[in-house]
Amino acid sequence: MLYQKKLRFSTTGRGTYNITKQITEAIENAGIKFGICHIFIQHTSASLILCENADPTVREDLNAYMARLVKDGDSLFKHKDEGPDDMAAHIRTILTQSSLSIPIDKGKCDLGLWQGIFLWEHRTNSHKRNIAVTIMGE
Amino acid sequence: MLYQKKLRFSTTGRGTYNITKQITEAIENAGIKFGICHIFIQHTSASLILCENADPTVREDLNAYMARLVKDGDSLFKHKDEGPDDMAAHIRTILTQSSLSIPIDKGKCDLGLWQGIFLWEHRTNSHKRNIAVTIMGE
Amino acid sequence: MLYQKKLRFSTTGRGTYNITKQITEAIENAGIKFGICHIFIQHTSASLILCENADPTVREDLNAYMARLVKDGDSLFKHKDEGPDDMAAHIRTILTQSSLSIPIDKGKCDLGLWQGIFLWEHRTNSHKRNIAVTIMGE
Repeated sequence: MLYQKKLRFSTTGRGTYNITKQITEAIENAGIKFGICHIFIQHTSASLILCENADPTVREDLNAYMARLVKDGDSLFKHKDEGPDDMAAHIRTILTQSSLSIPIDKGKCDLGLWQGIFLWEHRTNSHKRNIAVTIMGE
Repeated sequence: MLYQKKLRFSTTGRGTYNITKQITEAIENAGIKFGICHIFIQHTSASLILCENADPTVREDLNAYMARLVKDGDSLFKHKDEGPDDMAAHIRTILTQSSLSIPIDKGKCDLGLWQGIFLWEHRTNSHKRNIAVTIMGE
Repeated sequence: MLYQKKLRFSTTGRGTYNITKQITEAIENAGIKFGICHIFIQHTSASLILCENADPTVREDLNAYMARLVKDGDSLFKHKDEGPDDMAAHIRTILTQSSLSIPIDKGKCDLGLWQGIFLWEHRTNSHKRNIAVTIMGE
């Protein structure tokens, strides 16, 4: 069995957005009991991560860490057509994930207790982000 | 065809643990000749990597590099409930993988000659780590 | 339905190689309308990324950034049998991807407009690189 769905999210600038609920709902709608849920973001300046879902300071620290690791407007960058966050966003995407695959067990998204699914917007401005969900199994 | 199996590993603190044998065995037990083996770790402070499997100094260097890239107790971190390695473990997980997908060819795990599958414990203490294996194919 | 294919690429040293066309062709040959295309590189010193496909300076900046993040011949490294780029190549691989999974929609590789698929050679010398493509769906 196979189920596909396109999701669209509006971001309000750089940061992490919890999309666990939307993915969990897609899995429940698919009617697939055992298998894999594949989530794919169709952009090169936003990514997907699994992250601790309880304490918001984890994601604050993560954002602060990443901003230091990949500096906006780094003097190394030649690609800056869309501003100092442009090339940084591409690198932040490549250092994280464009897709996640999560097991489905007994019709449920089989995440660990502390795992949440987050869209990570790397651009400083608002964007529309498309995610393709593909669920395969029995 | 679909096969699922839960594996549980005990770690004795930070470092890499070779789990290639357990994954290879799961594939052989599944009786699936062609397809994909998906391995998913249900935690946010331990991850999965494919790494060179022959010279142990590769993994020593990798551990040393990662300890310098993501410093325990970095003054940037506000999330430190469980000690200086707490937030560092979350970031190390996000910079590596929570899941791996490996092709199956003629009933075998189709890794390259030098590729091994490793669980990477990022916490300094011992932990129990759950891994969900899902194998799909023909 | 399941389709597998082995691809082999010759690299001419460190840098990114656009393999979108070869993957797109494999998907078209598979005759699978909806599903997932899984791409797996069987090496520990070359990796796969999705990257902006239009402006070549993006990949120049990416290469420059990675060369600074993971320094060839870092004094930390004990593993240097094959030269100063040996251990750096392993780390660069682990910080990026050994596999990519891309949705298939209406028989087409469902990438975003600006996404290209690149093989990233991390060794300074030429290499032959094997990639296993597995396509599953309906």
